[in-house]
Parts: sequence; C-alpha cells; structure tokens
Amino acid sequence: MSAMTIPDSEYSQRIAKVQAALKEQRLDVLLVHSNEADPANVRYLSNYWPIFETAGILVPAEGEAIQIIGPESETYARDRSKLSIVRKILEYRESAEPGYPELELDTFASIFAELGITPRRIGIAGMSILPVTIYQVLRESAPDAEIVKADDIIVNMRIIKSPAELDCMREAFRISEVALEAVLAEMRPGMTELQVVGIAQRAMYENGAEYEGHPTYVLSGINSTHAIGRPGHRVLQKGDYVQLNIGARVAGYSSSVGRPLCLGKMTDEMRRLTEVGLEAHYKTQEWMQVGLPAKEVVAKFYQFVHDAGCGENLLYGPCHGIGLMEVERPWMESDSEYPLQENMTFQVDTFLYCQDFGLRWENGVRIAQGKVERLSDARMEIIELDV
Amino acid sequence: MSAMTIPDSEYSQRIAKVQAALKEQRLDVLLVHSNEADPANVRYLSNYWPIFETAGILVPAEGEAIQIIGPESETYARDRSKLSIVRKILEYRESAEPGYPELELDTFASIFAELGITPRRIGIAGMSILPVTIYQVLRESAPDAEIVKADDIIVNMRIIKSPAELDCMREAFRISEVALEAVLAEMRPGMTELQVVGIAQRAMYENGAEYEGHPTYVLSGINSTHAIGRPGHRVLQKGDYVQLNIGARVAGYSSSVGRPLCLGKMTDEMRRLTEVGLEAHYKTQEWMQVGLPAKEVVAKFYQFVHDAGCGENLLYGPCHGIGLMEVERPWMESDSEYPLQENMTFQVDTFLYCQDFGLRWENGVRIAQGKVERLSDARMEIIELDV
Repeated sequence: MSAMTIPDSEYSQRIAKVQAALKEQRLDVLLVHSNEADPANVRYLSNYWPIFETAGILVPAEGEAIQIIGPESETYARDRSKLSIVRKILEYRESAEPGYPELELDTFASIFAELGITPRRIGIAGMSILPVTIYQVLRESAPDAEIVKADDIIVNMRIIKSPAELDCMREAFRISEVALEAVLAEMRPGMTELQVVGIAQRAMYENGAEYEGHPTYVLSGINSTHAIGRPGHRVLQKGDYVQLNIGARVAGYSSSVGRPLCLGKMTDEMRRLTEVGLEAHYKTQEWMQVGLPAKEVVAKFYQFVHDAGCGENLLYGPCHGIGLMEVERPWMESDSEYPLQENMTFQVDTFLYCQDFGLRWENGVRIAQGKVERLSDARMEIIELDV
Repeated sequence: MSAMTIPDSEYSQRIAKVQAALKEQRLDVLLVHSNEADPANVRYLSNYWPIFETAGILVPAEGEAIQIIGPESETYARDRSKLSIVRKILEYRESAEPGYPELELDTFASIFAELGITPRRIGIAGMSILPVTIYQVLRESAPDAEIVKADDIIVNMRIIKSPAELDCMREAFRISEVALEAVLAEMRPGMTELQVVGIAQRAMYENGAEYEGHPTYVLSGINSTHAIGRPGHRVLQKGDYVQLNIGARVAGYSSSVGRPLCLGKMTDEMRRLTEVGLEAHYKTQEWMQVGLPAKEVVAKFYQFVHDAGCGENLLYGPCHGIGLMEVERPWMESDSEYPLQENMTFQVDTFLYCQDFGLRWENGVRIAQGKVERLSDARMEIIELDV
C-alpha cells in the first residue's frame, strides 16, 4: 500500500527557495494559483489540493506563507495544508459563484495588512490558469503595484526532482503498470471503451493511487487518431486497434503508461507504424543524454521518423516534462535550447497517426548519467490480444 | 447501457437562444469559456468537452458559432463538437504553455475577421474561470470594445431542464445508485478510503457513466467533517462513521448520491445527528414548491435544524442547482429571491457536522407541480453495515 509522502522539511525548503528568488527578482510577494484541473503549484508548496473550489498561496519575500482557499474548504485545508495560516477569499469559491451572505471572509487587502506589506511588485505563478475575477480583486487591493508573470520561479524548482519526488513517481508508474496488466487481462470485444476505463480505475485505486494522473485513455478504432481525446461508449470489436494511456497519481505525482494494441492480429499497416513508433521511442530514450540541448533530441526524432518514411504521421515532438502534472514544463520542442540535466523527468511520448488509427508509446524516464532511468517499461512489444 | 444523448436540434436551439439574448442585450458576440474542471458552458452549446487544453465558443449575434480549441485537440473536437467551424488559438493550450513553433494558429482577430465583425460589446460567459492570458489576447484583438460579464445569458437557459436533459440526469442518478449498492456490498474494515473509491468508479463505468460527476467522496472518521474533501489512504476501522458521495456523469450531466453510514453500530450521538439530517432532508423536499421564493426554503431549513437543537452543526444552506455541473446555479441561500420553477433541478444537500464526524444526505430532485420528482432515493435509512 502506498504511503509515499514528501517530508515536511522539503515543503519548508521549497518556501525558502521561493523567498530567495523573490528577493533576487525584487518581488514583494508571489501569488501562486491552482485549480482542480491543475493543482500542481499549490500542492508543491503546501500539499493542499483543491476540489470544487480553487486555491492559492501568498508567499511574501519575508515572513510566513499563507494558504488561500474558498469558503467551504476550511476543515479540509487545515487537515491537508502544510501551512498553518489559512485564509478564505470569496473569489476562490466554486465556479457557480455562491454568495455566502452569512460568512465573514478575508480579502487580499486584509491579508496584505496581516502580513504588514504594501506590495509594489507582485509575481503570479500560474497566470495561464488564474481567473480574471481573482486578478481583478488582487488588482483592486494593490492598485499601484506592478503585477508580473513569475511562473519561472516555481518551474525552475519543479523541473529537477528530489529523491522523495522520484520515489513518488516510481510508485505512480508501478501502479500504472499494475493497472495496465489488469486491463490487458480483462478487456474483450463487446465491452465499451468506458467499461475498460473502469477496470483501470479500480486497479489503480486498489493498488495505492490517490487519483488518476490524467483522465484514462481507451481510444479504439478511429478514436485512436485523437492526440487528445476522451473514451466513449464505442463498443470494442475484434480486430480493433486500441490506444491505452493509464496514469496513476501518488502523493500528487502523476504518471502515464501508453500502449497501443490490437484486439486480434494487426494488419500490415498497423504493425509497420506501431514498430516504427516503438523503435523511435527507444531511440529517443538513447538520445536523452545529460548536457545535450533538448532541441537536438527533437531534431533527431524528426529525422528518424522522416527517414522511416513516416513524416506525414507526425503531430508533435517526442517528450514533455512530467511531475505533479502529467504534462508540465519543460516541453521539448524544436526551439528548446535548455540542456538536459540529471533528475529532470520526462514522458517520452511517441505519437504517430494515419487516417484510420493512431498510436502512442509513452513511458516516464529520469535523466541520469549514462542511460536514462526508465520509470516504466512493461509490455514494450507488439501487443495482439487473443480474443 | 447508456446511449443517452441530447439531440442535435437542441444544440441548434440553444445557439439560437443565445443569439436572441445577445441582440436583446446589444452584445456583438459572446465568448463562452470552459476547462477540464468546469466543462459546462461549452458542452451545453457544442457537446465538446475539453481535456488537457481549455475550450471556448464564440457566438456572434448573427452567423455561425465557432468552436475554439487548443493546438492538440483538432481531431477530437471535429469528432465531438456539434459546431462545424473549429479554430485553434494558442492561449487555449495546456497550462504548461508549450510554444508549438511549427504550427500556424488562429487568433481572436483572425476569427473576428472571418466573422466579418468588429465587436464593440463582448460578453463573457464563464468569467470566474476565464484565465487572464485569454482575456489579455481578447482585449488586444478588440482594444476599444467593452467587455462585460454575461454569464446570465447561459445560466438562464441552463436552469430549466428540457426532457432530454432530464432523461440524462435520471440515468446518471440511476448509475450512481447502482454504484452505491456495489460499495455497500463490498466495503469492509481494512480497506482504505481510496480502495472504496475504486469500487465505485468501476461500477459507474461498468454501468454506463462517461465520467465521474465529481471526485468520489469516501470520507471516514474525522475526515467526514470535511464539507469539501478528498479521500485518502486512511484505513477503515470497525465502528467508523463514513460519508459516501457517489456521482456518475451521463452525456455531460452530473449526479451525486450522498449517504452517511457506520461500519457497525452507530453511537447515540451519531444516530441522533444522522436522524435529524434525514428528517431535515425530507422536509426540505416537501418545502420545495413551485412558485415559492427559494429563500423561504432556506429559512425553513435553518429554523427546523435550530429547533432540533442542531444550529451549531450547520455550515450552509440546504440546496444547490445541478445539471452539467454537480454544483451549478441557482444556489439556494438566505437572500435567494427567485421563485422555484417547474423543471429546475436541485441537489438537496443536507450537511451537518460536529467535532468528530459529519454527514450529508444528498439527492437530486426536479421541481414539479405538487411534489418534487426524486432523481434518487435508495437507501434513505440509517445504514449500519454488518462487518
């Protein structure tokens, strides 16, 4: 059973690092934002993980960080958050915008007063998910302050994983592989895509997951062409090509294991593209060497796939960061200049598609001296179920 | 098996109604926003349901509505959306903000040009979830336009359910009750809260759910005091009080069935508060009469709970709207002046808590002439499992 956690001391160290970066960037305070769909930044600093409502953290350059929640999350936040000061602001409420006429709530102004600061420069971590309604009340609370995007402060910390983070990720990938085996053992023609999702979900929770790391993919037939997609009520048929992506979450850390398979024998076209993908996937892992600029992995990947005659089957590049989010920075694109560093973690995400089907070999890796450490590696083979 | 859907004609009618409201309010265009955590407004108008990326719809006062997606969702959106024009804008990308240097994308400016409009008044539906980054590019595309909150246009449509919507909701509640029975049959001391979640999840997917209507609650012992909470790795003990909330989603429509129970015999204190909650729950259903101002239901509920000597066990009012979101407008609060109308749907959400435990009786109802229609009603009894 999973009892993986991040030690309390690591949360304190993270806050201290943010405060050092704030001083360096002459920011008076950082507002960190998270919601149910992207809980990462808030979880990283406090272990709190919003549901229904959203959540924030105000980290002053000096002094104690403050957990911000909506009106209904108090007992939950006091139980989960590593921060001892918890304050409620109306605009962190549910999206249906209840009014709570009976409750007395805090505001950014009251919290700034409590912290004894009049911020002149405010950083935001999570601008791409910060709602306009929260930005507006922040702006009103500090009308003369400069408000700047400051995602990098936390991104730069999150991209290199600590030993405790890596343990959580290894456990998440282990559980995903257990769920993959459960699905392969039980899935049959006649089931819907969604019924197969149910098999994966139960196996993940049974084996220690706290949630899914991303909505489970069971995409069959033409649906497997969707790079992003959702499973539906399509009934699986003998001969179907099916794409599985199964990801468990452990102590906040996500995983995803992606395998294409056939319910029966693959056609020659299926087998050819599936094999090219498999080879490109392992080559990509070989190319991921400490010190190499990320864009060189991308260039090699594109070259390899083009040389294999599959250039028109490409949609995007070969890797993206993984950690608290199944997709997080750093992305690996043709203009990614940053060099690969030890203990960065990536999803090697090899997606190829044609008119009728699509496939994604996907595994987590840790950048290490010499070869990458594979966080998942089960069933890396042509899978043809005997149904 | 669930094959519930909303007919195509209903989607067209919804767009037409939005356009009529836009003309009435002298708005040139409405921007509707959704994300993975609140997919409701976009799903309502197009059936599209974002994952990883966010989604929007631009509805001009005249002409064809346009589905907006992020860079990676095209084949999925063309498969799912009822709108035939699909356009990609960078800022609808994943929260990790990949750059997509190879892709050519649209902008609000290019879409306004395509629609042949120079908007002067733009409405926003979903301001409480619209990210600052999208607001900014919208603002830049129409620097002189007035941008106003216009959630009410869609809220006013969504609060009265059509026959097709009601059928989806009835099916969602049916599946939730099936999952509840599966949980009651299998849950035992020694399991973790999360393992029980796995039982519920598998049962929901097995019986026709497309997703959970909300993250499943299995909150045991002191965790049951959390009005908003998440299940964890706590191991269930004999004698534990446990709060279950199980909600399946069907064709976008959410449900939730909430039942408190004991793994063994309830203590007198547990039984007393559980019975007061049960009675308050049924009374609330009786008070919900067509034409009554919603705040009167709230006043009667507070009075009843106070008279039962449980005033200090209250956190909030007795009902909230349900439909595409498990929590949606209209909220029912002490200042809710609106009258109850036929085919509004509510969750009767009776939450009481004390120091050591909390409980929530929760069921869906449809406002109807005479008595409410109960969308769920199974196991409305003191549940003491023989473990």
